[in-house]
Amino acid sequence: MIIDCHGHYTTAPRGLQAFRDGQIAGLTELSAPRTKGPLAIPDEEIRESLEGAQLKLQRERGSDVTIFSPRASAMAHHVGDATTSLHWSQHCNDLIHRVCALYPANFVGVCQLPQTPSDPLANCIQELERCVNELEFVGCNLNPDPSGGHWTAPPLTDRYWYPFYEKMVELDVPAMVHVSASCNANFHTTGAHYLNADTTAFMQFIQGDLFKDFPALRFVIPHGGGAVPYHWGRFRGLAQDMKRPPLEEMMRGHLFFDTCVYHQPGVDLLLRLVPIDNILFGSEMVGAVRGIDPGTGHYFDDTRRYVDRAPGLTDADRQKVFEGNARKVYPRLNPLV
Amino acid sequence: MIIDCHGHYTTAPRGLQAFRDGQIAGLTELSAPRTKGPLAIPDEEIRESLEGAQLKLQRERGSDVTIFSPRASAMAHHVGDATTSLHWSQHCNDLIHRVCALYPANFVGVCQLPQTPSDPLANCIQELERCVNELEFVGCNLNPDPSGGHWTAPPLTDRYWYPFYEKMVELDVPAMVHVSASCNANFHTTGAHYLNADTTAFMQFIQGDLFKDFPALRFVIPHGGGAVPYHWGRFRGLAQDMKRPPLEEMMRGHLFFDTCVYHQPGVDLLLRLVPIDNILFGSEMVGAVRGIDPGTGHYFDDTRRYVDRAPGLTDADRQKVFEGNARKVYPRLNPLV
Repeated sequence: MIIDCHGHYTTAPRGLQAFRDGQIAGLTELSAPRTKGPLAIPDEEIRESLEGAQLKLQRERGSDVTIFSPRASAMAHHVGDATTSLHWSQHCNDLIHRVCALYPANFVGVCQLPQTPSDPLANCIQELERCVNELEFVGCNLNPDPSGGHWTAPPLTDRYWYPFYEKMVELDVPAMVHVSASCNANFHTTGAHYLNADTTAFMQFIQGDLFKDFPALRFVIPHGGGAVPYHWGRFRGLAQDMKRPPLEEMMRGHLFFDTCVYHQPGVDLLLRLVPIDNILFGSEMVGAVRGIDPGTGHYFDDTRRYVDRAPGLTDADRQKVFEGNARKVYPRLNPLV
Repeated sequence: MIIDCHGHYTTAPRGLQAFRDGQIAGLTELSAPRTKGPLAIPDEEIRESLEGAQLKLQRERGSDVTIFSPRASAMAHHVGDATTSLHWSQHCNDLIHRVCALYPANFVGVCQLPQTPSDPLANCIQELERCVNELEFVGCNLNPDPSGGHWTAPPLTDRYWYPFYEKMVELDVPAMVHVSASCNANFHTTGAHYLNADTTAFMQFIQGDLFKDFPALRFVIPHGGGAVPYHWGRFRGLAQDMKRPPLEEMMRGHLFFDTCVYHQPGVDLLLRLVPIDNILFGSEMVGAVRGIDPGTGHYFDDTRRYVDRAPGLTDADRQKVFEGNARKVYPRLNPLV
């Protein structure tokens, strides 16, 4: 079985964006009641949105199950306030739940969190509980920068995040560290902000002692770990200079990179340097890069091809990357698929 | 000849930091006159600061000339105001000039700029002219984020920077895109902020049309181009999706990566993917990582070893990386060394 740990519902029916547009428009009407409002999307539209996209690509590329979450760039935690974020997250998560109910063999849910800059994480804890306990979700996406590119939140090792981590551990679910769209003109969302956040989070984990406080806490750092594998020597050297544990030791059982690296040499580097137990297959499809590589004639984000062709990877290692590691990182997957 | 394009005076005599400490302490005395004040460092201390460090390492590792600039992490453009930054930059640059005068065969100067968040770049233009015309400097370090990790400046493709670019072109000098220390707790300076800035700048150059407006403008993106070579497929795909020119075309004659990547597989990836004409030898020594790699028994930042051992690199290509490209990017080097 091939489990793709990184898929967002980027092809959601237009009704979802229409709801969001209305919600944002309503933010200026200060006297209006703060109701969640309905989201009316028929099953047929959900099917249509997936049949020609994620489901087609699963078949064509030979992956089986996608760990599926709301569109990351649309989380936009900086918009409105905690109530805005809660209503938006709940609708997005409910829609993912409907996807999983329609195609239980193809999708498993991961939730968006109703984060808001500077607010405590009580809403997020409740929504995580709801999604895991009621909707059978297996994890969440945690945004280290809910400000959208201004980086006003404390580092992920700060105690600000601890109540949420306690709930993650209690529910035995991991978080993918994933920012949303950038509203800072310096950072292109998918070409800079995403990768910067990955690199930033990894370095925070080197600096902190988070996993001493939470021995069962697990994070997936997407996009192949940002800049980390390319600068593996730099990070090894920094950890050593700072008298921190070796990277492999720090990562063991805690930090995992996906394979969302869109060319063969990049994936080869990742698989060669990072411990194989810390790598999960992912494609981020349909996502950041949608075109065909003229050099290969294949989609840039068809990452299965790269993993299949990586030299020196044993069959046992490939099975870990494709399936085994995901089942350990997301144990709630196991009863579902 | 081997030219190292990336060295900072990280070992400067203590008198420099004492000046800076005094300058910062003086910021609270609002009624005090804003004089530059003296910096009294004897030649002997300058010699001592280099003989056991950069000069020793040049000899041991077999590089000849270092393009040398003030310590990047100490630029701290967010401290004080424009006058603070001007006085500090002038002292730092004058000290680099003294280094180059003492060891003209070993060091060529690159200047720090007196940037200040939100201020226009008039001071920077004047200081660049002074350093190039009077001190024989061959380039500058341009900080895309003078706020120190809050990213409040406009992107490098914004017209805010154009008056400075005009002067760079007139003087025929390149800029290395180099941030300073992070004062945002999210970003470790050398483990996140530096790499993020490299990735961010590259993506800004993909998005903008800067090189149409300045056909002779040249930038060095340090630290091996941040996350870019590892995600070469992602950036190729993004450029294609956005109907932007291919990366090689956009970079040609304009954008250059150094080899400050501290392990063999990373340097191999860089040299294999990025056009050889766009790569300059650099080590960042004595800099971010100072230890010895227990896996090789050599210093992490002894990047010459990696370039020497890179498979598939012809002698002609290696000569470009070690010397030829630097002479084109920094043409003012040629009469000096």
